Amino acid sequence: MSSTTTVISNTRSGCVHRWTKTLIPTARDVPSDAITASHQLLLRAGVVRQVGAGIYDYLPLGFRSLRKIEQIVREEMDAGGGCEMLMPALIPTELYKGTKRDVEYGDMLFTVTDRHGRVAALGPTHEEVITELAKASITSYKQFPLNLYQIQTKFRDEFRPRSGLLRGREFIMKDAYSFHLDIEGDAGLNATYDAMFAAYTNVFTRSGLNFTVVEAEAGPIGGSASHEFMVNADSGEDTIYVCDASGYAANVEKCEIGQRGSDLDGAPTGDLEEINTPNLPGIDGVAQFLGCEPKHMLKCIVLQPKEENATKWVVAVVRGDHDVNEGKVRDAVGFAVELGDEKAARAAGFAIGYVSPKAAKLIDGCLLVVDPDAAQPGEGVGWATGADKKDHHVKHFTWKREMGDASYVKLADIRNAVAGDPSPRAEGSTLREQRGIEVGHIFKLGTKYADAFKFTVLDRDQKKRSIIMGCYGIGVSRTMQACIEQSHDDNGIIWPAPIAPYHVHIVLMKPEDEATKAACERLCAGLSAAGCDVLVDDRKERPGVKFKDADLIGMPVRITIGPRGLEEDSVELKARTDESKGGLVKLDDVVATCVGMLNG
Amino acid sequence: MSSTTTVISNTRSGCVHRWTKTLIPTARDVPSDAITASHQLLLRAGVVRQVGAGIYDYLPLGFRSLRKIEQIVREEMDAGGGCEMLMPALIPTELYKGTKRDVEYGDMLFTVTDRHGRVAALGPTHEEVITELAKASITSYKQFPLNLYQIQTKFRDEFRPRSGLLRGREFIMKDAYSFHLDIEGDAGLNATYDAMFAAYTNVFTRSGLNFTVVEAEAGPIGGSASHEFMVNADSGEDTIYVCDASGYAANVEKCEIGQRGSDLDGAPTGDLEEINTPNLPGIDGVAQFLGCEPKHMLKCIVLQPKEENATKWVVAVVRGDHDVNEGKVRDAVGFAVELGDEKAARAAGFAIGYVSPKAAKLIDGCLLVVDPDAAQPGEGVGWATGADKKDHHVKHFTWKREMGDASYVKLADIRNAVAGDPSPRAEGSTLREQRGIEVGHIFKLGTKYADAFKFTVLDRDQKKRSIIMGCYGIGVSRTMQACIEQSHDDNGIIWPAPIAPYHVHIVLMKPEDEATKAACERLCAGLSAAGCDVLVDDRKERPGVKFKDADLIGMPVRITIGPRGLEEDSVELKARTDESKGGLVKLDDVVATCVGMLNG
Repeated sequence: MSSTTTVISNTRSGCVHRWTKTLIPTARDVPSDAITASHQLLLRAGVVRQVGAGIYDYLPLGFRSLRKIEQIVREEMDAGGGCEMLMPALIPTELYKGTKRDVEYGDMLFTVTDRHGRVAALGPTHEEVITELAKASITSYKQFPLNLYQIQTKFRDEFRPRSGLLRGREFIMKDAYSFHLDIEGDAGLNATYDAMFAAYTNVFTRSGLNFTVVEAEAGPIGGSASHEFMVNADSGEDTIYVCDASGYAANVEKCEIGQRGSDLDGAPTGDLEEINTPNLPGIDGVAQFLGCEPKHMLKCIVLQPKEENATKWVVAVVRGDHDVNEGKVRDAVGFAVELGDEKAARAAGFAIGYVSPKAAKLIDGCLLVVDPDAAQPGEGVGWATGADKKDHHVKHFTWKREMGDASYVKLADIRNAVAGDPSPRAEGSTLREQRGIEVGHIFKLGTKYADAFKFTVLDRDQKKRSIIMGCYGIGVSRTMQACIEQSHDDNGIIWPAPIAPYHVHIVLMKPEDEATKAACERLCAGLSAAGCDVLVDDRKERPGVKFKDADLIGMPVRITIGPRGLEEDSVELKARTDESKGGLVKLDDVVATCVGMLNG
Repeated sequence: MSSTTTVISNTRSGCVHRWTKTLIPTARDVPSDAITASHQLLLRAGVVRQVGAGIYDYLPLGFRSLRKIEQIVREEMDAGGGCEMLMPALIPTELYKGTKRDVEYGDMLFTVTDRHGRVAALGPTHEEVITELAKASITSYKQFPLNLYQIQTKFRDEFRPRSGLLRGREFIMKDAYSFHLDIEGDAGLNATYDAMFAAYTNVFTRSGLNFTVVEAEAGPIGGSASHEFMVNADSGEDTIYVCDASGYAANVEKCEIGQRGSDLDGAPTGDLEEINTPNLPGIDGVAQFLGCEPKHMLKCIVLQPKEENATKWVVAVVRGDHDVNEGKVRDAVGFAVELGDEKAARAAGFAIGYVSPKAAKLIDGCLLVVDPDAAQPGEGVGWATGADKKDHHVKHFTWKREMGDASYVKLADIRNAVAGDPSPRAEGSTLREQRGIEVGHIFKLGTKYADAFKFTVLDRDQKKRSIIMGCYGIGVSRTMQACIEQSHDDNGIIWPAPIAPYHVHIVLMKPEDEATKAACERLCAGLSAAGCDVLVDDRKERPGVKFKDADLIGMPVRITIGPRGLEEDSVELKARTDESKGGLVKLDDVVATCVGMLNG
C-alpha cells in the first residue's frame, strides 16, 4: 500500500498548458437549475458542461482532475492485489436470466434493441458479466483469490437526474469483484475485503479528502460486511452517525443504538380514551389534535415476511418521533420483512393508519416487536396510539393494562438512530449526526451471484464448492464533485493539490511584455521539471478578470508575474487555501517554494 | 513531436505480475467462428473474451496493451497541440436536428429511449456534441486554433459484426476535432492537419507497426484533404495502391492513374452485329457468350446528379474489367453523382443492363464521360457493349462509326485503379496493390458542421465567419488487433515491445525451488527498476505447457529460470521475434541484455 503525502515529485515532468490553447469556459452567472454549490461551481468554472439531463461533457479541467483521481485509484487497487481489465458497456440481457436484476433495476436500466431485435442493457454495474467470465475462466482453486477491476462509464436512467455528477445518468465508476472459495485464510474473502478497505482509505486520503468510513447495511449476510466511504459535507444527501469517543460510525440504515432500559409495568396516566380523529394528515397532525407531541405516541407499523414464513405479520412499535428500521426488525425476528400489503393487512383485520399494539394480540400469526424507547410508562396524556378502528385514536394507552402479560412482547433495537442516541460502543457517549456524500462502498456478496450462475469449483479435497464474492465500488466522477462540495469558498473551487487539474496557475499581468514572457518561460521550465502541472493565463484580459477566474477554477498555487515584481526579480505567490501564505518571492526561489506549498 | 525508438527507460518503474494472480485464460482450440488469425489469437491467448455479438471483455492482457496504445496516442496528441477531454456516450438526438446524421446512420445507430420517452443515440462519433460545445464556448477568434480530443468507447450496430475487434459493435476510438477561422496560417486548418499527420505517423511508428499512409477520398471539398493510416497486412479488408518510385499511395476510392493515351478514330473490326443475349448473369457471362473477354467490352453506367442540376444523366463508360469510380466522375463533371434511379432511367429511355455509349446521344440532357482505356480502337470482336435494347448486345462497336463526331465525348480518369496501372507520380512506374487495415483517418471537414449549427465567430475585422473544422480518428482497439494480424506466427502473437502487455515473460521451471525463487526475485527487482513490465509464470504446470503459453501470448523477451542454468548462475533468454537471439545469460547481465533486446 503506497500511502504518501508527497504530491509533487520530480520523477515525472509536469505539463505546461496555456489558457488560450485549451478550453476553460468560465461563467459569472449561476445556472438557474444548479442548486448545490459544487454543481454550480462545476458549471461556472468550466469543469463540465451539460449535454442532456444527467449527461455531461468533462471539459479539459474536469478531465484532468478525473484522470488524477483514476490514477490514484489504479495505483491503490494494484497495490491491494487488484487486476485491471475492461468490460463492455453493452450487456446482453440474457446474462440477467439467473439473477433477474434487470427486473430489479426496472426503469433504472437503460436498454437498447439492436437491428436484429436482441436486447442489451447499458451496464449500471457488472456482477453478471464478471461472474460469467470467472465461471468460464477459473478452473482450479489455485486461482483464488482473484480480484478484477475496471474504471468505466456506467449508466442509470434516474427518474430525476440532479446535483450535477452526484445523481447523473452517465457517470464514471471503478468497480471491482473478488472471487474466493473461503471466507477466512490468505485466499479468503475477508483478507481481500480488508485489503480493499485499506486501499480505499489510501485513495481518499491521497486525494486530499476529509472523509468518514461508516458501517453500512449488508443485507441478510449479517455482520459488519459492508462499509461506505463518505466525504464529509454539510450538504451531503446521506446521514451518518458518529461516536467520537469510540470512533464508531455508521449510516442511518445500519447505525446501532446503545443500551436503553425498558419498563412495561408503569401505572396508567388516565382512563383509555377513544377519540374521533378524521382527516388528520400524518402523526404530527394527530399529535397536535390530541394535545401531545409525536414523541408521546406509539407508531405501529405492519410488516410481513419477504418470503413464506410461519409468521404472517409483524407489528413493529416505535415512538412516534422515531422511524422503524426494517433491517433491524429482520435481525430481531430472524427473517427479512417488508411493508405489509395494505389490502391483505386490512383483510386480516388491521385498521391500517390506526393500528395499536393490541392488534398483534388480536390477529392470528402476528409477532409484536417493540423498541425500548416505546416500551416505557406513559407520560402526560400517556401513550397516544391508534384505536384499531378507522378514524379513531386513543389516549392513555398503558402497556400493562392494555396488553396484560407482556411476556410475548419482543424488545429490540428496531429504529433508526437519531442525534443524541447513546453510543453502541462507548458507555455514556452519544451519537453525533453528520452529513456526507457516498463515494465508495465495499461489500461482501457471499454466494449470491455464483449460485445464480451455478458457478462452483472443486476444492483441494475434490469437493464442489460455491464461489464467494466481494464487490467494491468507487464513484470516480462523484468523488470529483464531492471534493468540490467539501472544498470551496464564495469565490470558487479550492482543489486539493493531489487531484487539482493543475498545481500552479500563472497569471500574466502583461502577456505581451518581453520580461514577463522570459520569466514565465523560466518558471514553467523549472516547475514542470519539478513535477508541477502548470496553467498559464496568457489571455489579453484585464488582471481583475484573470484573478477572478483564478479563484473560480481554484488551483492550489497562484503565481502572478507583473512588471512591478519583476523589477525586484520577484513574482507574487498565493495559496488558494490561505491568502496569508505566499507573498513576493524571488524568481530563484519560486520552484522550491511552490513544491513546499504543494507538499506541505 | 516526441518520436523515439526507446521503449524501456528507467524514468518509470515497471510492474511485476504473477500468472496465478491475474487472469490469462489461454486455450488450445481455435474458436469455430473466428476466421482471421488475429481474431483467433485474441481469443486463444486470453486477450479478449466475447460477451455478445461484436461485444468483448478486454481481459488483463488486452487491457494492458490498450493502455499502452492509448498512452502513446495521448502523448503524441498532446505534443501535436491537442487538448484532452471526455464527451458522453449518450447523445440526445435533438443534436442531430441540423445535420440529420441520425438518418444517415440509420440502423447503424444504437438508440435508447429513457423512462420519459426522450431518445438518445449511443455515439458512433461526436461531431455534433463537440460543435455544440465549441459554439457555446468559443466567443473570440483569438481562441483559434482549438483541437479537442477524447479516447472513448464508441458504438455501431453493425449488421454482421465480425473479425473480432476489427468490426465490433462497441470499440475504443480516439477522436479529435479542430476548429479554425482560416485554412492557411498558423491558426488555420492546414497547420493543424499537418500536425495531426505528424502525430499519427509518430503514434504508429512508436507502436512498432509497419504501416502505409494513403490519400483517401475527401468528398466534395477536393484536394488531398484526407489521409488514411493503414497497417499493412495481407488479410486486411482494404485495398491500397502504391507507387514505389515516388512513394505515392492511395486507397482504391482515391487512387489516381497516370497518363494514358486515347484514340477514338480506330477503324471498324467488323460490321456492327446485334446478338440476342437473354438470361446472362453479369458481364462475365455475356463476354463468354460473345466469345470475348470482359476487357473487350464497354461497361456503360447510368448515373444522375445527387442534387438538382441542368444535366439530367451521366453515362460513364469504362472497360468491362474496370469499375467506375463515382468520386472521379464527380471531379470530371463538376457535380456529385450517384447511381441512376432505375425506374426513372428506364422511363427516360435507358435499357438498363444493355446501355451503349449511343444512349447518351439519343437521350436528352445526358453527358458522356469515357475512361481513356475505353476510348481506344476495338480489338478482336471489337468492342462489345449493350444494344440499347433488352436482352441484346452488339459486337464490333466502333467509336467513330457509331458515334460520329466525338467532340462531345468527355475523356477523363473515371475508374478505380488496378495493379499495374501507370503511376500518377512517376512516369514509367506502375502501381502495386497492397492490403491493409485502416487504423487512422484524418479529414478536412470544412464548414459542414458549423453551417448546420450556425456557428460563426467575428474575425479580427468584425466580419462574421463560418467555422472550419478538421476531424482525426484512431481506432485504438482496432490498432491492437491490426498489430496482431501483422505480427504473429503459427505459435501465437508476436507483440512489438512498445505495446506488449509485458516486456518480459519469466517462466519458472520449478516454481517451488528456493534458488529459483531467489533468482526470480532478483531479476524482477532489476527488470522493474529498469522500466520493464514483467509477467512471472509461477503456475505448477509442466514446462511444455508454459512454453506453449509463452509463445501464444507472445511477450517480446522470455526468460527461463531452471535448476540447470542456475548451477552456472545463468538463465535462458529468448526473443519472441527471433529464436536465435538470446541464449544462456549470467544473472548479472540479464537486465542489460533484456533492455538491449527491447530497445534494439
